[in-house]
Amino acid sequence: MNIGIVGATGYGGADLIRILQNHPEVDSLQLYSSSQPGEPIRDSFPHLQRLPEAGLQEIDPVSMGKSLEVVFMATPAGISSELTPELLAEGLRVIDLSGDFRIKDSKIYETWYGKKPAPPEWVAKAVYGLTEWTKEEIRDAQLLANPGCYPTATLLGLLPLAQRSLLKQNSIIIDAKTGVSGAGRGFSTATHFSETNENFKVYKVNRHQHTPEIEQELSRWNQQVEPVTFSPHLVPMTRGIMATIYAEVTESTMEEELRKTFQDSYRNAPFVTVREAGNFPETKQVYGSNQCDIGISYDERTGRITIVSVIDNLMKGAAGQAVQNFNVMFGFDETTGLGLLPVYP
Amino acid sequence: MNIGIVGATGYGGADLIRILQNHPEVDSLQLYSSSQPGEPIRDSFPHLQRLPEAGLQEIDPVSMGKSLEVVFMATPAGISSELTPELLAEGLRVIDLSGDFRIKDSKIYETWYGKKPAPPEWVAKAVYGLTEWTKEEIRDAQLLANPGCYPTATLLGLLPLAQRSLLKQNSIIIDAKTGVSGAGRGFSTATHFSETNENFKVYKVNRHQHTPEIEQELSRWNQQVEPVTFSPHLVPMTRGIMATIYAEVTESTMEEELRKTFQDSYRNAPFVTVREAGNFPETKQVYGSNQCDIGISYDERTGRITIVSVIDNLMKGAAGQAVQNFNVMFGFDETTGLGLLPVYP
Amino acid sequence: MNIGIVGATGYGGADLIRILQNHPEVDSLQLYSSSQPGEPIRDSFPHLQRLPEAGLQEIDPVSMGKSLEVVFMATPAGISSELTPELLAEGLRVIDLSGDFRIKDSKIYETWYGKKPAPPEWVAKAVYGLTEWTKEEIRDAQLLANPGCYPTATLLGLLPLAQRSLLKQNSIIIDAKTGVSGAGRGFSTATHFSETNENFKVYKVNRHQHTPEIEQELSRWNQQVEPVTFSPHLVPMTRGIMATIYAEVTESTMEEELRKTFQDSYRNAPFVTVREAGNFPETKQVYGSNQCDIGISYDERTGRITIVSVIDNLMKGAAGQAVQNFNVMFGFDETTGLGLLPVYP
Amino acid sequence: MNIGIVGATGYGGADLIRILQNHPEVDSLQLYSSSQPGEPIRDSFPHLQRLPEAGLQEIDPVSMGKSLEVVFMATPAGISSELTPELLAEGLRVIDLSGDFRIKDSKIYETWYGKKPAPPEWVAKAVYGLTEWTKEEIRDAQLLANPGCYPTATLLGLLPLAQRSLLKQNSIIIDAKTGVSGAGRGFSTATHFSETNENFKVYKVNRHQHTPEIEQELSRWNQQVEPVTFSPHLVPMTRGIMATIYAEVTESTMEEELRKTFQDSYRNAPFVTVREAGNFPETKQVYGSNQCDIGISYDERTGRITIVSVIDNLMKGAAGQAVQNFNVMFGFDETTGLGLLPVYP
Repeated sequence: MNIGIVGATGYGGADLIRILQNHPEVDSLQLYSSSQPGEPIRDSFPHLQRLPEAGLQEIDPVSMGKSLEVVFMATPAGISSELTPELLAEGLRVIDLSGDFRIKDSKIYETWYGKKPAPPEWVAKAVYGLTEWTKEEIRDAQLLANPGCYPTATLLGLLPLAQRSLLKQNSIIIDAKTGVSGAGRGFSTATHFSETNENFKVYKVNRHQHTPEIEQELSRWNQQVEPVTFSPHLVPMTRGIMATIYAEVTESTMEEELRKTFQDSYRNAPFVTVREAGNFPETKQVYGSNQCDIGISYDERTGRITIVSVIDNLMKGAAGQAVQNFNVMFGFDETTGLGLLPVYP
Repeated sequence: MNIGIVGATGYGGADLIRILQNHPEVDSLQLYSSSQPGEPIRDSFPHLQRLPEAGLQEIDPVSMGKSLEVVFMATPAGISSELTPELLAEGLRVIDLSGDFRIKDSKIYETWYGKKPAPPEWVAKAVYGLTEWTKEEIRDAQLLANPGCYPTATLLGLLPLAQRSLLKQNSIIIDAKTGVSGAGRGFSTATHFSETNENFKVYKVNRHQHTPEIEQELSRWNQQVEPVTFSPHLVPMTRGIMATIYAEVTESTMEEELRKTFQDSYRNAPFVTVREAGNFPETKQVYGSNQCDIGISYDERTGRITIVSVIDNLMKGAAGQAVQNFNVMFGFDETTGLGLLPVYP
Repeated sequence: MNIGIVGATGYGGADLIRILQNHPEVDSLQLYSSSQPGEPIRDSFPHLQRLPEAGLQEIDPVSMGKSLEVVFMATPAGISSELTPELLAEGLRVIDLSGDFRIKDSKIYETWYGKKPAPPEWVAKAVYGLTEWTKEEIRDAQLLANPGCYPTATLLGLLPLAQRSLLKQNSIIIDAKTGVSGAGRGFSTATHFSETNENFKVYKVNRHQHTPEIEQELSRWNQQVEPVTFSPHLVPMTRGIMATIYAEVTESTMEEELRKTFQDSYRNAPFVTVREAGNFPETKQVYGSNQCDIGISYDERTGRITIVSVIDNLMKGAAGQAVQNFNVMFGFDETTGLGLLPVYP
Repeated sequence: MNIGIVGATGYGGADLIRILQNHPEVDSLQLYSSSQPGEPIRDSFPHLQRLPEAGLQEIDPVSMGKSLEVVFMATPAGISSELTPELLAEGLRVIDLSGDFRIKDSKIYETWYGKKPAPPEWVAKAVYGLTEWTKEEIRDAQLLANPGCYPTATLLGLLPLAQRSLLKQNSIIIDAKTGVSGAGRGFSTATHFSETNENFKVYKVNRHQHTPEIEQELSRWNQQVEPVTFSPHLVPMTRGIMATIYAEVTESTMEEELRKTFQDSYRNAPFVTVREAGNFPETKQVYGSNQCDIGISYDERTGRITIVSVIDNLMKGAAGQAVQNFNVMFGFDETTGLGLLPVYP
């Protein structure tokens, strides 16, 4: 297969290259960049010194439509909404890593993103690619909206309970923590080493744009559970997300029943692991891999469940899940090219 | 004044030395250690190359009773419970940084600490030294139980609302994050660099020993608010604690009223700062200082308040607050020796 | 092929598992541990939740000799010297990651390691596996002494010049920096997070055991160049080694000629890249991969050359090079299973 | 005394504020900024929430000349060269933390800095403030050129030997490592968290602008020792510099004699400590303090000495030494306001 990556000089692009370069079904990998066309990728990413097909090309939907079968859009929000429809018009299938086609309600998109929404006809057609939960729709998607990093960790931790109506209304609190790579390659005080190292901070309290994405997808499985409280924090590390999720359950229960519910949900999911009692995952334990590991605790003192869900934000939270969706869309085994074990330590 | 520090070779001891060495009311600072008596402190702490009074002495309550007026106990839980009563019997005043005299109910202590409780008569006399809230009792304390690091950050963030009965029953969730120095100088996988760097983990979910301390002190001001959910996390950094606290308030309200409540509570508190609307503190902004900074947000969508409270775990969470209590106990200005600004960046 | 890893619960073991689990020529991977036989590997390494063949087995040379073809020894110095001869006696080929069979002169071994040397007949037979430089000998090795992490980075940076007698006598200074994982999984102050984070330190000044290994191999190509000054430093990061090497060259020269010498040496080396003028590699640019990247500068003011060589200490500095040697020993393409691109960022 | 800080919103400014706010001889501290005049300092530095005199003022030499006695210039190179002469013309004494007045030869300044040199008459009058070595000149300086961070660590490690002509010609190699705060608050790839965390890099190989500063000051004490090789590296930490210095000594010697030479040089230096045999300083052991700690090793195998010198780059390498020089210039005890012990851990 001939594959294109738009936005190859960003961090999502880097991990797409890392995976797809060794993907057995990929014949040719073309890299595109609006900012540095004509330059070798190793100028942007010196770790790719030896990449064979490494020249950055100008983005031209017509010629891309002729030479490619699928395009990964690894561009920031607000750019994909304009470019993706042009690629789709050329008959390409598109896997979009931005948030531009995830939110079905355009008003909600505008409120939380502060940007002009994508064309509504394409937003309507876009399939939300939380692979473990929407696999059937993904197979036929022309436009795949790859989930956000926080929503991926959060929804994988909540949907087993939401689906079975085990969550109390307005009881969900998501205290999420991310590595700094989630902020991308753009410069800001939040990504300035001396301001972030040996520091822990919260940001966008009650106004992060992933909140409506979480609520929209939760309500697909249980309309009663929104709204949620969502607090993202920045950890002085590069990769990894942990979502610590608190919720009240609808009936008195036992931890082992809840654990069984999770295990049932993910019995056939090759990338999701439910930890045993008393065992909670750490972000480094999925570093560089497409895994999502989940630990749970039920506290009888408070009647509250605590769910801990970890992913690598650039893998299961971005590039890894994008390739997982690509595999499903083209009929390959879900794990193709994604057998990378975590890099530990 | 003649002052002793027991446990001078631990991290709490190091910060006590850093503060007290420049404290204008301290004439003589004696260091004690059960593990390395006779050695110079610079063998344990090479950063103290030039400390004048630096020989570690053997712990001898009788001779300490003769030469000292007050002793700071910077020892682990389980050791202070035995040694402190001997020092008190010699007429010394003791400021205990361990958890041994904080929990009034000995059964609760045993349940959560898994250790033999301290003598009940001394536990009963011990004054809990959350300086901003118990100053009157502190003045006359012979035995001061210095609060734990997590409880300090949490209680300073909750008591303004608890005192005014503004919190709903069983609605409090504390998602806390600490730097690794909180685990002390003992070796463990959790403090092993390669396992902790570039990693974020949760630990002791629903069973951390600071939970009952938080509940005990909350219930002093409002008996309705316990139990609480408390989840401690380990951040790949050395110093700093953030408590992100979620609660429901008893009546519909506005954020600015809540902020005013906090400002009223801390109007005369030299170390507690309430941030303006939209402004949340970061742990590095109090690094090395005795400050506690608090930010709040009220979310109308969920009816929930989010309180963010940060301290340096070794300062306001241990040594700094201990010296603040020392100042109150001996009638000095509360800020004496504690004017150190945060080290930034 | 049936392969064994002894010392599977250490960091070298973890990276051997990461590589060999996806190696197309490996049929079966058996894990051995003296400390936790019988336990699943996920108890030691929770990131390996789903590893199929994951039970740790007791080390039994006889049964290993029957079921395996080759064993990777990822044990500390002093253990391999005893166990490896037993495995060799069973007809196994052994790739030893420890330092026990690298030093040909047993007196030198004793002086620098402070341990009893391995049996001299096996030391004599051991092939030093710096793959790019000793490939012919490696093919037939029964016992492969895998190079140390520092010597690998250093020798790859020096041998192109040593081989051509371009280095002045007693002019070589190696200022090396390593991530903390090089110290392994054992607890010590040097690996204690709070003592190492936000800290930079030098250790074993003029007495590190890798010094004679560097000198021995240098003198194979040029007997005039030893002794060397070697200073290892500890960087607050987990993975990566940089060797900054200073030397005087024997004749006045130009940087581009020196660069061409390096490029000639590594023209057919798939893992070694010589950077262009003004371009120096960073450790993160080889993170998780088997690459070695080299940058050089010649300073006309001082007549001195500066060579900067970086590797991932656990990959090209240990497990990666071990698999590279395994490939050569068994006639596979040198890069088999080692196509992993660096994890960046 | 009435004191001004120009460039108060940078990292040098932050540490000047931290020190001077508690300096007993400072009556009033005025902050100046060209970029944010009129704003409170807490908008730039939220850790300074409670600073009393905190409004940033516009830079106006005339009014500054009337209200102040001395100004600390904590501005980047190229700005001080223009502004400082205006302040001097108003009769102010100036302590300049930039490199603009350090290099006596204007051609060398232009070559290495790539900027227009400062007025030569002021460059000629400027006193180089390496306090331990130029104290007599400092007392009467109107313009004090505060040394660079790297030269401070390096020169304190070399001058005891240079002064006594113990160093061989063209034998000095300085392998220096700095925390990221040395790059200041400006955004760049080198200061971007995800590119610098878990990474170690070298930069400006053989062309760093501190090279001629080191050579100029070395040649004051011994004209034979230049040129030097100087390689700066970036460590993934915020504060701290280590200079690992290699040199050949002119006569065969013993380590203890060399150590005695160092001890003699610094017998009366309150901030410089020479470590005992086998003991080498770590950067964290001087964190936040004005100390410089030095360890030495003489290797009989190579005839080479290794000197390890550590400072906090923002303290002894900038703000701390600036205040030390201020104390000398105004006749206060050299240590006034600088009794801050290192923050450890």
